[in-house]
Amino acid sequence: MLRLKPVFSKLENDLGILGDEIVTNFHSQAKTLTSEYHTIGSFDISKLTAILDGSQSLIIRKVKLLLSRPEFAYETSTDIHVYREKVFEWCKILAKENLGNTAYPHQYGGGENMADYFAIMETLSYHDLSLVIKFGVQFGLWGMSVQSLGTENHHRKYLADIGSLKIPGCFAMTETNHGSNVKGLETTATYDHQAKTFVIHTPHPDARKEYIGNAAVHGQMATVFAKLIIKGKDYGVNAFIVSLRDTNGKIQPGITIGDCGHKMGLNGVDNGTIIFNKVVIPKENMLDRFASVNDAGEFESPIPSDNRRFFTMLGTLVGGRIGIPRSALSAAKSGLAIAIRYSDSRRQFGPEGGSEVPILNYRMHQRRLMPLLARSYAIHFGLQYLTQRYLSKNEAEMQQIEALAAGMKSYSTWSTRDVLQECREACGGKGYLSENRINALKNDTEIYTTFEGDNTVLMQLVAKNRLAEFRKAFGQMNAVGMIYYVYENAKTALSEKNPIVTRKTDEAHLLDDQFHLQALEHREKTTLASAARRIKKLIDSGLDSYDAFNVTQHQMVDVARAWLDRIIFEQFRLAVDKIEDEKVRAALTRLQQLFALSVIEQNKGWYLEDGYMEA
Amino acid sequence: MLRLKPVFSKLENDLGILGDEIVTNFHSQAKTLTSEYHTIGSFDISKLTAILDGSQSLIIRKVKLLLSRPEFAYETSTDIHVYREKVFEWCKILAKENLGNTAYPHQYGGGENMADYFAIMETLSYHDLSLVIKFGVQFGLWGMSVQSLGTENHHRKYLADIGSLKIPGCFAMTETNHGSNVKGLETTATYDHQAKTFVIHTPHPDARKEYIGNAAVHGQMATVFAKLIIKGKDYGVNAFIVSLRDTNGKIQPGITIGDCGHKMGLNGVDNGTIIFNKVVIPKENMLDRFASVNDAGEFESPIPSDNRRFFTMLGTLVGGRIGIPRSALSAAKSGLAIAIRYSDSRRQFGPEGGSEVPILNYRMHQRRLMPLLARSYAIHFGLQYLTQRYLSKNEAEMQQIEALAAGMKSYSTWSTRDVLQECREACGGKGYLSENRINALKNDTEIYTTFEGDNTVLMQLVAKNRLAEFRKAFGQMNAVGMIYYVYENAKTALSEKNPIVTRKTDEAHLLDDQFHLQALEHREKTTLASAARRIKKLIDSGLDSYDAFNVTQHQMVDVARAWLDRIIFEQFRLAVDKIEDEKVRAALTRLQQLFALSVIEQNKGWYLEDGYMEA
Ligand SMILES: Cc1cc2nc3c(=O)[nH]c(=O)nc-3n(C[C@H](O)[C@H](O)[C@H](O)COP(=O)(O)OP(=O)(O)OC[C@H]3O[C@@H](n4cnc5c(N)ncnc54)[C@H](O)[C@@H]3O)c2cc1C
Ligand SMILES: Cc1cc2nc3c(=O)[nH]c(=O)nc-3n(C[C@H](O)[C@H](O)[C@H](O)COP(=O)(O)OP(=O)(O)OC[C@H]3O[C@@H](n4cnc5c(N)ncnc54)[C@H](O)[C@@H]3O)c2cc1C
Repeated sequence: MLRLKPVFSKLENDLGILGDEIVTNFHSQAKTLTSEYHTIGSFDISKLTAILDGSQSLIIRKVKLLLSRPEFAYETSTDIHVYREKVFEWCKILAKENLGNTAYPHQYGGGENMADYFAIMETLSYHDLSLVIKFGVQFGLWGMSVQSLGTENHHRKYLADIGSLKIPGCFAMTETNHGSNVKGLETTATYDHQAKTFVIHTPHPDARKEYIGNAAVHGQMATVFAKLIIKGKDYGVNAFIVSLRDTNGKIQPGITIGDCGHKMGLNGVDNGTIIFNKVVIPKENMLDRFASVNDAGEFESPIPSDNRRFFTMLGTLVGGRIGIPRSALSAAKSGLAIAIRYSDSRRQFGPEGGSEVPILNYRMHQRRLMPLLARSYAIHFGLQYLTQRYLSKNEAEMQQIEALAAGMKSYSTWSTRDVLQECREACGGKGYLSENRINALKNDTEIYTTFEGDNTVLMQLVAKNRLAEFRKAFGQMNAVGMIYYVYENAKTALSEKNPIVTRKTDEAHLLDDQFHLQALEHREKTTLASAARRIKKLIDSGLDSYDAFNVTQHQMVDVARAWLDRIIFEQFRLAVDKIEDEKVRAALTRLQQLFALSVIEQNKGWYLEDGYMEA
Repeated sequence: MLRLKPVFSKLENDLGILGDEIVTNFHSQAKTLTSEYHTIGSFDISKLTAILDGSQSLIIRKVKLLLSRPEFAYETSTDIHVYREKVFEWCKILAKENLGNTAYPHQYGGGENMADYFAIMETLSYHDLSLVIKFGVQFGLWGMSVQSLGTENHHRKYLADIGSLKIPGCFAMTETNHGSNVKGLETTATYDHQAKTFVIHTPHPDARKEYIGNAAVHGQMATVFAKLIIKGKDYGVNAFIVSLRDTNGKIQPGITIGDCGHKMGLNGVDNGTIIFNKVVIPKENMLDRFASVNDAGEFESPIPSDNRRFFTMLGTLVGGRIGIPRSALSAAKSGLAIAIRYSDSRRQFGPEGGSEVPILNYRMHQRRLMPLLARSYAIHFGLQYLTQRYLSKNEAEMQQIEALAAGMKSYSTWSTRDVLQECREACGGKGYLSENRINALKNDTEIYTTFEGDNTVLMQLVAKNRLAEFRKAFGQMNAVGMIYYVYENAKTALSEKNPIVTRKTDEAHLLDDQFHLQALEHREKTTLASAARRIKKLIDSGLDSYDAFNVTQHQMVDVARAWLDRIIFEQFRLAVDKIEDEKVRAALTRLQQLFALSVIEQNKGWYLEDGYMEA
């Protein structure tokens, strides 16, 4: 045995096995590095606020001031009827302050300012999220469906009253049987040429409208999506204005309303079901921007394909997919502010004989919260970019902007879900008490991942858009360009002539934003090319394309996520570059680095598998 | 340019770039593989139930029968006062049915059956979780603290009345300033030798008891944890019985009760704060199993070290860390049953021209739910193992069992959090309506990751226990044994004489449980050895051990998780091996494989980094 001794010691040394004294007896000094950490204010907060608020700072201040009025004190009743009325009252105040109609044309009393409208949604979201959703249903979904899908006549007749909340209304698209797949809606709008009317009808119970905001109590009218039927022929889904209640709130004949009742959150919003029993509406109630019935009783549309018309219609409603992720981000910011501040003052444990230490000083706590803080800043700039693209959109860009909105909606709302989960746990028992707000923030935003388009479904759309773009770029590229693209991505090419210095692990390299961008771009391009390759292979092997897309759904989500990671990082970087104040820039630069590194860390399995990184 | 053509085609071929026809035009047959999938019942459910229920099947049936009585219909009031009373009534029914005292000694009317007690907690958890927690506070925390920390006199005086719910009570440990770090509690119990009394006192507002279940409304007595002071000397935290209210519910003099109010969940439980203003209790109210004041007015204890005594005291309460993860698992099972059943009937989208397809047929949906189903089965058997170890414990094993309970508590409650999150999203809008139960399941169990010990803190404890075991094993091993251990783990050794066949990727190998176990063991051992090495290195470099543990917290969590993954898999495998029915075994074998593979996939970054797997 003796001859083993040197081996033994060498191994003990190599492994650095813990000595007895360490495990059995942890001597600590009262003052340790961990206890000495403390947070410092390294920059002027108002400067950072100015950067974040940008050109919307005035409206943001206005809304914040309004919310600080006593009548906006949080409603604490758990009675949903009380809560719903309170939220409705709040909406009336906002309407009175001319906030509801911010985006509508001047001629109907509006402000014609969509940028401000988004900023209002975002700022209201620091307060009560039922208010945000009720506000969004009324002025966004209901009002903007009339604005975008209707024409002059509808605008004149309704927009002012929608903006003043004289006509509370609904956006009635989803049906029990059709949520994500709205193309399959079954409600019918049958044209009667004699009477010049449409008959709106729910053919069976599971075709009832469901989850409709404002339906259970307050809604007087609704934009109803229904299949247009003319002379027995189905012209696909179109939008119609239907009266639900009279001005006294009495439900109209032929209409049956149900109440979705208590929900996980957003209990200040009155979601309901609607059944139409042969409800007759005048012909003029068809929102006829993209399709109409002409005087001869025939279908007319500037867009011949049912499919394209439907998606064009939906496309005009993309604003909701900007408002929701911005609202989600505000909730995440609130949660982080609560959790990080609390963690900086909450003390628990400490070195033997020393005083207790703020929990924020624990490495684990930092790892739990800081990457989420960084990600939230990143998303902020990503959403600013989305908003800018949307505001300055032109026809040709629409598809990409829609994909970007779908992607950012998913990215931001999933992030909020994760952020608020971590914030709840990071605050321990305090995070569970409703008085500390995480409850409401978390449960109200819980549905954000589902409504305005289910995230998992949206990410598939994003990926399909990426595949189409890939195909297009590739079609237009000349051979040299393509080979260049391929060299950048194909794995074989990589290993032959790897342009990326994978083995540099010094700190400067790890913090280098060029390296970060390259790493994110590499993942973006490689996941895309490899999904394309796989789908092609599956189809070549005889699989139906529907099946091929099903089998690769998981990869599709990766494609979308990688694209969004890159875009968000890029926008964060551009925004930070522009910051003039040194100290603010220094602080955000560190968050930018942390964002990039945590994305890379999250995907380290991918990078190692790919060979981009080595162990 | 022409000479590039062959390269071009080769690359196009290698990459399998999508052809035009694929991206721009997805032709689908109405009948596709995706639409043809359908679920089948491949085994006899009652046989699987018998295996899961095991020797507790009788009591489980009894509880299920009870819960199906009309008086146990869910309470739907959102008024917490109504809900609290309903839950209290439910507890009374359970007490009357002799379920509350199941674990108490026969002589006090109990059933002396701890195994049944756990099964009751678990089964009640298919119903209302406020009921489970109220039940657990009363019969578990309150009753068992009297049973475990008190002696004969206390048992005689209280146990029967606790078991019958004649004396509703509390377990008052946590204070506002001290949650995880209970050693730091500040409530004092000052001994008065003249009067033979203790004076229970809250020295400052932040030392009040907080979150205490049963305190706000129903509790008449409480086990109060306080620092024992005798003649000015502090003898550390001990437990005392204090009366909070008289039998009419009137609060006793010197006691101030606050109400924690509305919470994220568990609103049927009346959590409150307690302030003691020099409350005098008789000497006999000290729970004196581990420490007492003798007739001479001196401190006495069979366990000399304050620290060890405190942890021995806590150790007797480890039952809660078995009840909670088992309750959590029931909630996860309910969620999965709801989501998977719904997904099998919910149809959305489909191939062009074909009918819509159950969402469970989508690959993404399967990937979202099935690994969680597999993990839940795995945890079931892991928790059975924990329970068995606990029920047959001997002194020497206690530390390991405590670590196992702490670990399983964290593992199961975190898993439930993830499961219910996914179930909510998988059900789309339906998952958000309270009537579909996911709301209650999710929000009620949300705090499970925090109470009975915060998970992040518990995982550190588990890892420290692993390090201690590692040290111990290593100290006892002879040189050959150690080298063998090291060879199995050290990376250098691995690459020289790798016993693991890393390159086998055929299906048989991938599904082989030997491979799974080896992979999990490898990660368990390597993360442990590497954490030990890192801590040693940090301390050698001059860092205080407190700082060294702080810096490695993240790794410590990995050590604990890797250990638990291996144990749970091992127990799952042992349980599956024992199943006689071929069909049930076949079904569970697939889940066992899926569990192992999904753990490996989750940790693929680690495996690649480590070199155990190659890209
Ligand atoms: C509180 C609330 C308010 C709402 N307000 C309104 C409103 O005012 N007006 C209105 O019209 N609607 C409203 N909705 C409806 C909302 O838009 C829908 O819930 C949403 O579109 C999702 O539809 P669904 O609930 O039917 O889910 P489903 O479409 O049934 O989706 C269920 C699950 O299946 C998955 N899935 C579906 N298809 C696929 C696929 N092809 N591949 C992989 N996975 C798939 C999804 O990811 C999801 O997890 C509201 C909903 C709620 C809950
Ligand atoms: C609904 C409810 C019911 C309860 N019922 C009872 C009861 O009946 N009786 C009773 O006595 N108590 C009860 N509790 C209290 C419960 O046991 C405590 O909330 C729990 O022990 C956590 O303590 P804390 O809330 O102070 O969190 P803290 O200890 O403050 O922890 C906050 C955060 O800091 C982190 N953290 C703390 N220390 C460290 C560290 N060293 N390293 C890294 N991270 C760290 C934690 O991970 C956590 O995320 C209840 C609590 C709730 C919410």
